[in-house]
Amino acid sequence: MTTAPVQLQRASWPQRADTGAPALAEGDLDRIHRWWRAANYLSVGQIYLLDNPLLRTPLSRDHVKPRLLGHWGTTPGLNFLYAHLNRAISERRQPTVFVTGPGHGGPGLVASTYLEGTYSRVYPEISRDEEGLQRLFKQFSFPGGIPSHVAPETPGSIHEGGELGYALSHAYGAVFDDPDLLAFTVIGDGEAETGPLATSWHSNKFLNPVTDGVVLPVLHLNGYKIANPTVLARIPEEELQELMRGYGHTPHLFTAGFDDETPESYHRRFAELLDTVLDEIAVARAAAAEQGAEHAERPRWPMIVFRTPKGWTGPKTIDGKKTEGSWRSHQVPLASARDTEEHLRDLDDWLRSYRPEELFDEQGRLDADIASLAPPPELAMGALPQANGGSRRIDLRLPDFRQHGVDVQVPGAAVVEPTRVLGAWLREVMRVNPGNFRIFGPDETASNRLQDVYDVTDKQWMAGYEGGDLDAFMGRAGQVMEMLSEHQCQGWLEGYLLTGRHGLMSSYEAFIHIVDSMVNQHAKWLKVTNHIEWRSPVASLNYLLSSHVWRQDHNGFSHQDPGFIDHVVNKKADIIRVYLPPDANTLLSTFDHVLRSKQYINVVVAGKQPNPTWLTMEEAVRHCTRGLGIWDWAGTEQPGTEPDVVLACAGDIPTVEVLAAADLLRQHLPELKVRVVNVVDLMRLQPEGEHPHGLSDRDYDTIFTTSRPVVFAYHGYPWLIHRLAYRRTGHANLHVRGFKEEGTTTTPFDMLMMNDLDRFHLVMDVIDRVPGLASRYASVRQQMQDMRLEARMYAREHGEDLPLVRDWVWPQAAEVDAPPAGMQNSGTGGDNE
Amino acid sequence: MTTAPVQLQRASWPQRADTGAPALAEGDLDRIHRWWRAANYLSVGQIYLLDNPLLRTPLSRDHVKPRLLGHWGTTPGLNFLYAHLNRAISERRQPTVFVTGPGHGGPGLVASTYLEGTYSRVYPEISRDEEGLQRLFKQFSFPGGIPSHVAPETPGSIHEGGELGYALSHAYGAVFDDPDLLAFTVIGDGEAETGPLATSWHSNKFLNPVTDGVVLPVLHLNGYKIANPTVLARIPEEELQELMRGYGHTPHLFTAGFDDETPESYHRRFAELLDTVLDEIAVARAAAAEQGAEHAERPRWPMIVFRTPKGWTGPKTIDGKKTEGSWRSHQVPLASARDTEEHLRDLDDWLRSYRPEELFDEQGRLDADIASLAPPPELAMGALPQANGGSRRIDLRLPDFRQHGVDVQVPGAAVVEPTRVLGAWLREVMRVNPGNFRIFGPDETASNRLQDVYDVTDKQWMAGYEGGDLDAFMGRAGQVMEMLSEHQCQGWLEGYLLTGRHGLMSSYEAFIHIVDSMVNQHAKWLKVTNHIEWRSPVASLNYLLSSHVWRQDHNGFSHQDPGFIDHVVNKKADIIRVYLPPDANTLLSTFDHVLRSKQYINVVVAGKQPNPTWLTMEEAVRHCTRGLGIWDWAGTEQPGTEPDVVLACAGDIPTVEVLAAADLLRQHLPELKVRVVNVVDLMRLQPEGEHPHGLSDRDYDTIFTTSRPVVFAYHGYPWLIHRLAYRRTGHANLHVRGFKEEGTTTTPFDMLMMNDLDRFHLVMDVIDRVPGLASRYASVRQQMQDMRLEARMYAREHGEDLPLVRDWVWPQAAEVDAPPAGMQNSGTGGDNE
Ligand SMILES: Cc1ncc(C[n+]2csc(CCOP(=O)(O)OP(=O)(O)O)c2C)c(N)n1
Ligand SMILES: Cc1ncc(C[n+]2csc(CCOP(=O)(O)OP(=O)(O)O)c2C)c(N)n1
Ligand SMILES: [Mg+2]
Ligand SMILES: [Mg+2]
Repeated sequence: MTTAPVQLQRASWPQRADTGAPALAEGDLDRIHRWWRAANYLSVGQIYLLDNPLLRTPLSRDHVKPRLLGHWGTTPGLNFLYAHLNRAISERRQPTVFVTGPGHGGPGLVASTYLEGTYSRVYPEISRDEEGLQRLFKQFSFPGGIPSHVAPETPGSIHEGGELGYALSHAYGAVFDDPDLLAFTVIGDGEAETGPLATSWHSNKFLNPVTDGVVLPVLHLNGYKIANPTVLARIPEEELQELMRGYGHTPHLFTAGFDDETPESYHRRFAELLDTVLDEIAVARAAAAEQGAEHAERPRWPMIVFRTPKGWTGPKTIDGKKTEGSWRSHQVPLASARDTEEHLRDLDDWLRSYRPEELFDEQGRLDADIASLAPPPELAMGALPQANGGSRRIDLRLPDFRQHGVDVQVPGAAVVEPTRVLGAWLREVMRVNPGNFRIFGPDETASNRLQDVYDVTDKQWMAGYEGGDLDAFMGRAGQVMEMLSEHQCQGWLEGYLLTGRHGLMSSYEAFIHIVDSMVNQHAKWLKVTNHIEWRSPVASLNYLLSSHVWRQDHNGFSHQDPGFIDHVVNKKADIIRVYLPPDANTLLSTFDHVLRSKQYINVVVAGKQPNPTWLTMEEAVRHCTRGLGIWDWAGTEQPGTEPDVVLACAGDIPTVEVLAAADLLRQHLPELKVRVVNVVDLMRLQPEGEHPHGLSDRDYDTIFTTSRPVVFAYHGYPWLIHRLAYRRTGHANLHVRGFKEEGTTTTPFDMLMMNDLDRFHLVMDVIDRVPGLASRYASVRQQMQDMRLEARMYAREHGEDLPLVRDWVWPQAAEVDAPPAGMQNSGTGGDNE
Repeated sequence: MTTAPVQLQRASWPQRADTGAPALAEGDLDRIHRWWRAANYLSVGQIYLLDNPLLRTPLSRDHVKPRLLGHWGTTPGLNFLYAHLNRAISERRQPTVFVTGPGHGGPGLVASTYLEGTYSRVYPEISRDEEGLQRLFKQFSFPGGIPSHVAPETPGSIHEGGELGYALSHAYGAVFDDPDLLAFTVIGDGEAETGPLATSWHSNKFLNPVTDGVVLPVLHLNGYKIANPTVLARIPEEELQELMRGYGHTPHLFTAGFDDETPESYHRRFAELLDTVLDEIAVARAAAAEQGAEHAERPRWPMIVFRTPKGWTGPKTIDGKKTEGSWRSHQVPLASARDTEEHLRDLDDWLRSYRPEELFDEQGRLDADIASLAPPPELAMGALPQANGGSRRIDLRLPDFRQHGVDVQVPGAAVVEPTRVLGAWLREVMRVNPGNFRIFGPDETASNRLQDVYDVTDKQWMAGYEGGDLDAFMGRAGQVMEMLSEHQCQGWLEGYLLTGRHGLMSSYEAFIHIVDSMVNQHAKWLKVTNHIEWRSPVASLNYLLSSHVWRQDHNGFSHQDPGFIDHVVNKKADIIRVYLPPDANTLLSTFDHVLRSKQYINVVVAGKQPNPTWLTMEEAVRHCTRGLGIWDWAGTEQPGTEPDVVLACAGDIPTVEVLAAADLLRQHLPELKVRVVNVVDLMRLQPEGEHPHGLSDRDYDTIFTTSRPVVFAYHGYPWLIHRLAYRRTGHANLHVRGFKEEGTTTTPFDMLMMNDLDRFHLVMDVIDRVPGLASRYASVRQQMQDMRLEARMYAREHGEDLPLVRDWVWPQAAEVDAPPAGMQNSGTGGDNE
């Protein structure tokens, strides 16, 4: 899709009076009305017709699709709004993204972008003539055609129809750092009942009126959802207005379609309302610009309540039942149009009620006067560059992460909080990428130890200030977004990425499940766009999951859940990446990688509590590049002989336990040949054919052996490792320890013991699995059991872990410069430091 | 926990004037104040102290816990409210459940239930003396002790601290059908930012003021969350009031703690406010009772904005930084109390500021005058029977489901919509269990074909009515709950179950992921309560997932996701059950089973489109009881010889494909000995040791063989089957087909082909897997490939499936009484029929 970029960076948005546009004339309103009729006609055509797109011959059953799949009810409202916006956009030269909350109204958006000309530019075979119309109709909801909902295939869309609730948060994400952009956001009144949507109104407390664009919410109050009235349509209008004012908006009510008001009259009313509202926005922005970005007050942004009948202009009744203005319009009102003469006749009447012959010429081309309503191509909503965000993505400038590396003399000597180290580098990233990178989090950025970023930016906050240090790190314009809603953060970030920018979301590992379903939708979007040529790649969706399962001993069982990894791994292999860096240096290297990547969902799990650093920066880079590797300094195998056992680990805490177990094995079973393998990139475990990162069988077999027991200490649910590796030759020898859903408020080491992931149990596992050890080392095994008991007893008495465990360090590190005692424990509190 | 049940069923709730309670006197307020001091003292003690609970000796570092884990900030507010409620409950004899939104305030709830006496009744070792106090302090957030958050262990709780957002929906769930119950619901101002909480205010449009109880929301506006101010605390008060009025409430503002007002004064103000508000509720209920349940209007229920400093009564500053009234109070303000003299002194001052010597006697017993504030034991909030819902659970009366069975002459002959059949039985269930069973769903009950229930009940709806048939099936009192919020439905259902009732949630399969994280929390709750003796089992949480992945061909890729099963299977095996009934009769039998069960999460996936019925009712019962079985009528094996291949299936659509494949194999490879196995209870695949339903290896090996290829057609992501079965002997021979994340808007059969789950591909799989077939049946294999091509081409041309495919019926059925053509296709539209 090539359209000239709109070069604006306007000092301010014009009011209509400033644009030189003439007063609204009857001709304008008529043009809008005819556009609307055309859009509705094309929408109905898409839902029902295989052929005969201009009704040049009498409509017959054969012209009707055998399966009628689509949604009519929301469509005329969407078409109405799109038609009116065209005028306003042209007059004001206002770049506008149309966010379709009721994304099931796919036919409407396809019709509107077809009328404006974008559709045929993007898909030339859907030409602007009768043949093109026939293809347009047939392809809709048809095998080999296009989806029934607004989808990645739809030009101008950054918001897929599907799971409802994210229209407003996507819209706000789109306008952050894009002061020219208006997000015209239609919200279904059913959609408005969802939790994510209900809180997303508060986004206006996070929007800077100078440095960000503007969201104009339009509540599409058509009264019904699938089979019920909606709450907001059935509360008194005064209550609805209070709700909107309570959300910080100035509501403007518009009602039409319930009486015999003429089209000219309601179009005039709406056009004037739209002008009023856009002028209000322009005034608010001008006032804010006066105050300056750093001091601007939050405007009470306008919003529109658009109360019109569901299925407006559709059949008033069908089979004697009220249809227009009811939930009966939601999907396909005339379900038997192909099967019964009566419904066919009704369909014919309905289609002809739009008088297509007045809208399209002989060749099937849209009447030129109607077509003139469309904005110039570079401002057409379907062609908005922001809605094909990848096309305007600017790669991040990434400062050298190596400079932030932890100095490691010997493995394990440098004890640091990994996410804090990451935070220092992220600060530099933010410093050099203003307006192109944001961090999103549900009140946990500092808790997750990224607070160094506040050296260079603030948490953006447009609600009130109290003054003093309680407002620390908050500013009217900033690049960190914090609201206590994972949905909101995720929605904002998605909108920000899909319009061409970069970001990351930091969250507690357990609660990231809140956005499971949003991740599904985004993964599906990425998968589909990978096959759409005109969509350019967008920056990856990056998660930093900290406060993870093994360090929620203080918050207890409700905070302990590593299952998000399992969730994402169900999505397409070419979209998903999961990293478990074992220390600060590998975390840095991993993040440098993920911030450069495109079209992925990257999940990075890393602890915020003090943790040894195992690898030098150079080793870390190599290790991350390989994705996994043998740590020969940690093992006892001899070159030239196979090891007796492989101790594998993935995750920071499992790595500590495996190394501690390796240490114990050296002491107690000195002749045992142990290989230690650490996995950073979990996808390496999958077969080559299943995932682009998958190890070849040859590599896998070399590293894990085909015949030796592998004791694998894994961060999450153990069965995931089996699922990834079950095709490998040595799978029968694989024994995985991980989180088996045992937890409570206790000590960190007790958490490990509850799940048999502790060093002592790993030693027992080795003794049990390596042939011949069990009988010979029964006493060592018993010693390990005793250590477990002692550790538990100690914790129950003292409330902290056995010093022997807590203060353990890797032997080499102990020799050099022992890390401070208690390193494993010290930090599990302090979430709001 | 044995307390006398409160026998009320009061005609109306009393106003205070009716109770004969004397006017509020200074003594009452002083008593409240001293209770509050005691509760705060005990809360601080729990967070910090190992010993010296009454400060009888000078406080030393050894008395301080080595790890300080807990949350202070929200606690004094909770304690304040609890103290005041005691008085009101006693006076009005008002059964009240205290729902603690900020559930991290665990110390407060433990302290309050200790003061009222419940805690020691439930846990006698935590006695009401010095020794008990020492144990109370030590156990908190301590290994072997109790969680830091409000948890199942906490008497009086139905709402676990952890993931924030569900306080109000749990509260509403608790009071549905319990007209005596008040749910006093504290909502954190941070929590209020979450999506689920933001929409849950609208629950008041679904509450009947006669047949249900009342929720009194208290917005705990302490201004801060972990490290940020809250949105609602930083918008103008007028805006907040509009928001609350917009949500349908009458807000009452209370502010205290920011100046030097005397305790007597603010306690008086709050006590009076509480009386006002409770009287307002009583008046509203009386008015509604007058109107009658069927005609009552929705009251503008009161709510309280409780604006007090976070960490009220705690240290004003620490290390020179403002602490009381700031986010610094959120967790443990004096983090170094054990490490530095200064913090120890501050802690000592803080503890002594409550003057414990005035609160507890020599023995450490609570002062009798203070203790007299507690309601009588049977009304104590910690002992509320509803909060131990299992104790009052009444098993459902279940009408004989066999009577609703589909008559099956020969397998596959009866084509029905399974969920519709279920709906007819559910109607009978609802008929005989009024007030004890509800159905919850996000606007999808009819879409999922359960609409027969509307013969006996309505969708409960207290927003406006328009009159006429658009209000069909809606009523002010009904047992079906529909709001377009999966969160809300789930939260309501959880609250309903945890207070002792029964229910089910019906949802689209894809969008049930919206509640993934809520399911985690509930699963954890169940797991923990299984080990708490005094908690009686509650009814299972039942899901009916329809509109599933294989029948969302019309809505497209965004609606196609079977991963919820994978999600739940990560939870504890003794909690999780997953059923995939292949037809209507097995669906009935399954549902009879799950509605009888307790303490489980049951996931049932079943289609709503026309589907053959394979088993007679008696066969279905046997099949469901076994959980899986060989369908010998479908196979071609001979008794006495091993089959050549096992065709296994789980899920309604995979079952159709496997049977169609078996049919093709009969025709094309007549000598091949095929065994057909159908799995209803997915957990049967797991090893015995992993899941209580797991098949023994002997049984598994007998059914699936140890050496023959098993081609397994599965409803969901194929790797789940591997994960369940990887330990089985024959695992290497297991080949699973399922959803591999390929989809779009297309025909039903095309969806199957996109994922290689179609009958033709299954036949190809058999040819590929059974040794010796590949070369001999290359031409059959090619024919199958051709059929796939033909089916795809046909779909792309006609928009529906090849008649050969669409109209296929099991040969026996074809002989008898062929089902109507197009049975597989006809119904994928019509979501709002
Ligand atoms: C989260 C979620 N739950 C359920 C659905 C199923 N669904 C599709 S459309 C719809 C009704 C939408 O109503 P509304 O937002 O009012 O849209 P409109 O009336 O404009 O069609 C529902 C419940 C969904 N898409 N997303
Ligand atoms: C959904 C969710 N996200 C994040 C958290 C982490 N968290 C725990 S407490 C808290 C702040 C809560 O603030 P508020 O509701 O105001 O409670 P209070 O101030 O009374 O402590 C947060 C963000 C959580 N528990 N749940
Ligand atoms: Mg609607
Ligand atoms: Mg708060």
